[in-house]
Amino acid sequence: MQITQLVEQSGTPAATIKFYVRAGLLPAGERVGGNRTDYGEEHVHRLRLIRAMLEVGKLSISSVAAVLDALDTPGLPLAETFEIAQNALSRDVVPDISEPSGESVARVDGVVERAGWRHCGDNVGRRIVAQAVDAFAKAGHPLPDDYLDAYAAAAQRVAEADLTAVGRIADPVDRTELMVIGTVLGDTLSLGLRRMAQAHITSERYLS
Amino acid sequence: MQITQLVEQSGTPAATIKFYVRAGLLPAGERVGGNRTDYGEEHVHRLRLIRAMLEVGKLSISSVAAVLDALDTPGLPLAETFEIAQNALSRDVVPDISEPSGESVARVDGVVERAGWRHCGDNVGRRIVAQAVDAFAKAGHPLPDDYLDAYAAAAQRVAEADLTAVGRIADPVDRTELMVIGTVLGDTLSLGLRRMAQAHITSERYLS
Repeated sequence: MQITQLVEQSGTPAATIKFYVRAGLLPAGERVGGNRTDYGEEHVHRLRLIRAMLEVGKLSISSVAAVLDALDTPGLPLAETFEIAQNALSRDVVPDISEPSGESVARVDGVVERAGWRHCGDNVGRRIVAQAVDAFAKAGHPLPDDYLDAYAAAAQRVAEADLTAVGRIADPVDRTELMVIGTVLGDTLSLGLRRMAQAHITSERYLS
Repeated sequence: MQITQLVEQSGTPAATIKFYVRAGLLPAGERVGGNRTDYGEEHVHRLRLIRAMLEVGKLSISSVAAVLDALDTPGLPLAETFEIAQNALSRDVVPDISEPSGESVARVDGVVERAGWRHCGDNVGRRIVAQAVDAFAKAGHPLPDDYLDAYAAAAQRVAEADLTAVGRIADPVDRTELMVIGTVLGDTLSLGLRRMAQAHITSERYLS
């Protein structure tokens, strides 16, 4: 297809498409004589992924490039692609990545051990959780272990739903797309449902 | 205590304290002759709450004022204080509060019905969840009901932990403080633990 059709199908302006090509996010179209360049379905698809990462995920251009690099590496295991996407996404989602205290990191490791989780020692989440544990304590409300364990059990449940959804998809590009979109939007989903569940439980416990 | 001691105990500069008083967030100290003003423990306490809302919650000054108003209303039920805090916090946490589609709102209502939640029809979460459902669909990955239900079950679990923690506290100021801090930091906690659980489950399902 020509660029005008790509613009139409993807809803992305021509100037933006050309910028993505120059930035190395989108493969160049095929030159087919004179002034014409030909684009395929893979361009439509990739443009959707790029826009999802930029607009839904609020990723920087360099983070988008890192995820696409992972996607374009033949034979990269799913777990590694996921980790790269997680790291890219978490940099921007979590405002302030300062060093957590050793005490809080040890408490997070305790949660992980009790949950029976393996292979997540250097995951970006470990630092995020330890920082949150620090912040609660600093604000005068240190968290008890049972609170953290309840959160971990809930996290396991949502992550199982995430991986089941990802596992239903065979195409690696589609799968990465869902990983990226799901990582960001799943956080919003959790946040909103938590507010509603709080309203329900507050009314159950304090109004009835 | 004098302002110098309040500065020391609260870790808040004098100019900031005076700004909070002018903005109506902090009650003025008691004038005790000439140039001296006397502050009490309640000032230290409230300063901690204000800073938690501004720094941890990233609330605007007007949102802080709304929460403090709720707190200062004698006899306001816990459920209402919670709702005001939730609304104030969610405005700033969720970047873009546009109108969700009627279809997605109906789907969220279905989730709520299946979960057996009551009294959350006009909760801020309903809109947030419906927007996320829209965003998934727009990105080409519409969510199945079982995915949403798994998230709702997880949300119920974290909300139960939240309310149990809040219920352990008798003092209304302390309790509101935990609600505010917990609403914001609990989201971060969920986010981080979800990343770790994803890493665990990915490795379980795809590496072993």
